[in-house]
Amino acid sequence: MRAAVLHGVGEIQLEERPRPEPGHREVLVRVDSVGTCGSDVHYYEHGRIGDFVVESPLVLGHEPSGTVVAGGAGATRHRQGQRVSLEPGVPDFTCPQCLAGRYNLCPRMRFFGTPPIDGAFSEYVVVREEFAYAVPDSLSDDAAALIEPLSVGVWACAKARVGPGTRVLVTGAGPVGLLCMQAALAFGAVEVMITDVNPVRLRLARELGASATLDVRDGRLSEAGFDPDVLLECSGHPAAIGEAVRAVARAGRVVLVGMGGEEIPLPLAHVQTRELEVTGTFRYANTWPRAIALAASGRVQLDALVTGHYGLAEVEQALKAGGRDPEVVKAVVRPQE
Amino acid sequence: MRAAVLHGVGEIQLEERPRPEPGHREVLVRVDSVGTCGSDVHYYEHGRIGDFVVESPLVLGHEPSGTVVAGGAGATRHRQGQRVSLEPGVPDFTCPQCLAGRYNLCPRMRFFGTPPIDGAFSEYVVVREEFAYAVPDSLSDDAAALIEPLSVGVWACAKARVGPGTRVLVTGAGPVGLLCMQAALAFGAVEVMITDVNPVRLRLARELGASATLDVRDGRLSEAGFDPDVLLECSGHPAAIGEAVRAVARAGRVVLVGMGGEEIPLPLAHVQTRELEVTGTFRYANTWPRAIALAASGRVQLDALVTGHYGLAEVEQALKAGGRDPEVVKAVVRPQE
Amino acid sequence: MRAAVLHGVGEIQLEERPRPEPGHREVLVRVDSVGTCGSDVHYYEHGRIGDFVVESPLVLGHEPSGTVVAGGAGATRHRQGQRVSLEPGVPDFTCPQCLAGRYNLCPRMRFFGTPPIDGAFSEYVVVREEFAYAVPDSLSDDAAALIEPLSVGVWACAKARVGPGTRVLVTGAGPVGLLCMQAALAFGAVEVMITDVNPVRLRLARELGASATLDVRDGRLSEAGFDPDVLLECSGHPAAIGEAVRAVARAGRVVLVGMGGEEIPLPLAHVQTRELEVTGTFRYANTWPRAIALAASGRVQLDALVTGHYGLAEVEQALKAGGRDPEVVKAVVRPQE
Amino acid sequence: MRAAVLHGVGEIQLEERPRPEPGHREVLVRVDSVGTCGSDVHYYEHGRIGDFVVESPLVLGHEPSGTVVAGGAGATRHRQGQRVSLEPGVPDFTCPQCLAGRYNLCPRMRFFGTPPIDGAFSEYVVVREEFAYAVPDSLSDDAAALIEPLSVGVWACAKARVGPGTRVLVTGAGPVGLLCMQAALAFGAVEVMITDVNPVRLRLARELGASATLDVRDGRLSEAGFDPDVLLECSGHPAAIGEAVRAVARAGRVVLVGMGGEEIPLPLAHVQTRELEVTGTFRYANTWPRAIALAASGRVQLDALVTGHYGLAEVEQALKAGGRDPEVVKAVVRPQE
Repeated sequence: MRAAVLHGVGEIQLEERPRPEPGHREVLVRVDSVGTCGSDVHYYEHGRIGDFVVESPLVLGHEPSGTVVAGGAGATRHRQGQRVSLEPGVPDFTCPQCLAGRYNLCPRMRFFGTPPIDGAFSEYVVVREEFAYAVPDSLSDDAAALIEPLSVGVWACAKARVGPGTRVLVTGAGPVGLLCMQAALAFGAVEVMITDVNPVRLRLARELGASATLDVRDGRLSEAGFDPDVLLECSGHPAAIGEAVRAVARAGRVVLVGMGGEEIPLPLAHVQTRELEVTGTFRYANTWPRAIALAASGRVQLDALVTGHYGLAEVEQALKAGGRDPEVVKAVVRPQE
Repeated sequence: MRAAVLHGVGEIQLEERPRPEPGHREVLVRVDSVGTCGSDVHYYEHGRIGDFVVESPLVLGHEPSGTVVAGGAGATRHRQGQRVSLEPGVPDFTCPQCLAGRYNLCPRMRFFGTPPIDGAFSEYVVVREEFAYAVPDSLSDDAAALIEPLSVGVWACAKARVGPGTRVLVTGAGPVGLLCMQAALAFGAVEVMITDVNPVRLRLARELGASATLDVRDGRLSEAGFDPDVLLECSGHPAAIGEAVRAVARAGRVVLVGMGGEEIPLPLAHVQTRELEVTGTFRYANTWPRAIALAASGRVQLDALVTGHYGLAEVEQALKAGGRDPEVVKAVVRPQE
Repeated sequence: MRAAVLHGVGEIQLEERPRPEPGHREVLVRVDSVGTCGSDVHYYEHGRIGDFVVESPLVLGHEPSGTVVAGGAGATRHRQGQRVSLEPGVPDFTCPQCLAGRYNLCPRMRFFGTPPIDGAFSEYVVVREEFAYAVPDSLSDDAAALIEPLSVGVWACAKARVGPGTRVLVTGAGPVGLLCMQAALAFGAVEVMITDVNPVRLRLARELGASATLDVRDGRLSEAGFDPDVLLECSGHPAAIGEAVRAVARAGRVVLVGMGGEEIPLPLAHVQTRELEVTGTFRYANTWPRAIALAASGRVQLDALVTGHYGLAEVEQALKAGGRDPEVVKAVVRPQE
Repeated sequence: MRAAVLHGVGEIQLEERPRPEPGHREVLVRVDSVGTCGSDVHYYEHGRIGDFVVESPLVLGHEPSGTVVAGGAGATRHRQGQRVSLEPGVPDFTCPQCLAGRYNLCPRMRFFGTPPIDGAFSEYVVVREEFAYAVPDSLSDDAAALIEPLSVGVWACAKARVGPGTRVLVTGAGPVGLLCMQAALAFGAVEVMITDVNPVRLRLARELGASATLDVRDGRLSEAGFDPDVLLECSGHPAAIGEAVRAVARAGRVVLVGMGGEEIPLPLAHVQTRELEVTGTFRYANTWPRAIALAASGRVQLDALVTGHYGLAEVEQALKAGGRDPEVVKAVVRPQE
């Protein structure tokens, strides 16, 4: 089969590799769509994210959907031909974090496209059968792939305890911000403001249901008259975080979704006197069924985020598009095309 | 002013009474719409509910909306002419339950239309200014009144931790059941089944968004293939509760919203082996802002429940309609007409 | 090796069986102490508990401690000779309940001494290595065995959210009641009342820290002047549960720990007007580290509950003692003696 | 009556003032003991804390115990002569924060010794009757005063969800740190490590039950082999916070108890990849009954923290002692002496 392999910073080659064999309770999946993500771009441009360093050839891509082709020994969950969305990280299942229901914090997690585990920019992948989730025909291949970033939004909203009546501020209207925003609306929030510097993305945010948008080149958050209970930080700009945290109401929740470097300045007095809760998300746990239900019911729009399709030979263009072009929201790779 | 006064079982008289004076931090409200509720009917027909006994003439009605006419000393929250929805129970604010945020459990609660506190089937009422909530013009008077029963649904869904992905079973499609169902949808639930024996109400439920309905004269819940995480019990039929509880999935939540007598048989082994959580609701706390936001945004339909209007002289007809007529969902009293 | 095998109601035989072989990531454990439990007695006397029916010869016993003798392939967690307390139920690790951290609700749980899985009344057992927990030398073999029923108490207190200032009522002063009581004290509760009809057990309860005891033959709970926030029901007497539930304060929690038949009458009006939460426990999850810490630090006394030791040939006497003799609290089987 | 009045930075004068009159539902309390606190010292030395600025003569002191002398109109809760511990902040009771049970975040809070509200360094004070809590005779006057800082610890432990099995790190062994540590033990924690640079305080910590202490001049936290689930930050040193946060285990909780300036650097990557929760405490809510129960039962030692007594004329010495002398833990003012 063909796979797009990262060989060094800025260097991806299309290669022939043996098709993987599904192991015990694994399924072999033909990959139909794979979303590209900022972390793919970061590995491609820098060769590392924090402590995760690319030290040998690596296949990127961790937002895949596909079709079950075969099952390994003991795999009984899916019939052949089943369309599936893949949860890209498989934990060890038996460590204390896993037993406590926090498998995303499993120290032995094997996650697609994170060194040294190969990802999904290839024609086929294998995955534990429980981590392939059947999707209804109403979901397109792209939408089934974008269940992954939607899960990021679902996880952030769950951590922030978003519900009816919660006022939500989302900083950053990239794909993750737009999906956090849509997730917040789906959790019952009526007032959801989103900020960015990119008018294309802000217009899309309005089309997708934002109750307010703010171009932070034109106005200050502190003058926007919005008093959020929840901040979902998706910009990753350390300088912006402090101002956003200062906007949060008493007993509010701050969830740091975007990655923004090693340290950020936290407005301590504000956190203390308002008893804010500040936390971060690391991937997600138990979100796929919820995210699929939201997308399949039409409460969240996923296809609307897709701005371009690329073949396996064009992975570099896909990553460059996602990283640079202000008109691009989500570039999707189609390995079978 | 005129008021409809309950003088004994089945006996309501229209009387002239002095218009009340707003006290410290109270507002005087001209009553525009008042929903009738099963508990009003119960007091009218039986003169009591459990330990609450009608021992002297009583004005019923606890689902009022209206217009602020005047304020007492220290009342600064509302301007004259402000349209408001009234939260009908004012606690003592300083007992341990109040200080813990559970003011609905305050033992000194003064609740409209609950002996010996007069309710809102009258031209004017006074209420603590914080318990009159401004409503936007997009909400009709009737909808502003029905914020009260919607609050019951919001409170039930909050207790049941309904969110995206939660499968919800609502038993009973009366006004409270229909509002619990709509609240569940607004909290993000996609699969919400509702049961009743009244096809008019089940048809309305489908129009309002139920994903499935079951006429329990035609089919058994245990054969419906629905595996709910949450049961919102709004039928009040003790015989039906056991079967519904047995349908609930592992780690599920059961909220007893309808009143069903002193005791019910609880399927103990089922509660233990599935670790179900069973609780009841007693009114609500801190729900008005959330309920108003849901109704004003159009996520919950309130006017669709109103099947008839009655003047102050027709309160008995309104109560009889709500209690007996299978075509009636919610009868609303309009004291100014 | 020798094992005590249940062949029918009231019929246990000592037999020679092959020593089990530890499988992948399992350890072979020499059994040193095994507590006897009411459910062992129930299987011995009735051949079933609810839907669990003994249909072929079965080894009972699910409260074991022992010493690691050997490890299977991939087992690296324990050295030979390590003293361990065994968690007796191993789930499938990958179902939705397991992934959510509720592995005690796993439908494919394999639990010691529950048909058709053999238990620990034998010289050796094998168990998944993660479910053998190292214990410090300060814990006796008996105490290491009684980590299992202490886990029941820890789980009940966690569900009931017991902490400093919580007033706790424990109904039933059998081993589980006494351990729920001690767990409640260890969670910070200062006022813990326990009830029973057995003065021996009530005296032991006082020695172990109960702040009050009530012999329910001598006085009524409703006259005891105790207003609990939490009820831990460990008596299993349906008739008593209603009275105890009626004693619980507003916003209180009721945890049904004892098994008391198929149905119980639940005081509905009380549950609703006080918004009580009622739940049951089914075994436990993630409790071993906490329970070992409490026992090792001396905050919970386990050896004080042991009233007799029995060899493998005396399992029937052990079970009869636990079921009948009012002086017996906890009978312990010592398979190596 | 006499009162110690702050007239400017470093300037306290003993003055005669009229004895206050208890208003509606207030009680007049003769002050017996008042703990001195770091915030008193800070106002004395700097004239402000953040946005709170001393602009007119102010009586400091917010940790009072005393004896009820008289009641105002409607005050029925206490008899004359009742010994009481005073909760020093009275909210408005009716704002959204109060109604939600978060009265410590009430924007109209009136708090003893915080500008412009006078505190308790005087012979008498008045307080809302519900905020005077009866104490048993087993509690000394000093202990009844120190219920206030113990409440800080109880609140921090509640926010951090400390319980049996939780490993707790307390940074800073001043009075608040020592009480957070004792509260953690009382909530069931067995492993509680505390750090400081003052050997006198660390020795006291060991006497009061710390399972480990670390003098951070002698060793680094990262080499201490302690993997805490919870960090209770009581040092207020921004530089130290980062290292302590980096020590916290996955899914851990960080509670910022000490005040440490406007901003701190937060190790973002660590917070995200471990999904830490970071929050701060602002005073406390609903803690007095719990704190009194813990102190009265002997589970927390309060008198052991008192290192000196001072008369009203010696308030300046008391404040200087608390701020400077390494042998001093808690200086207590006795207004009647």
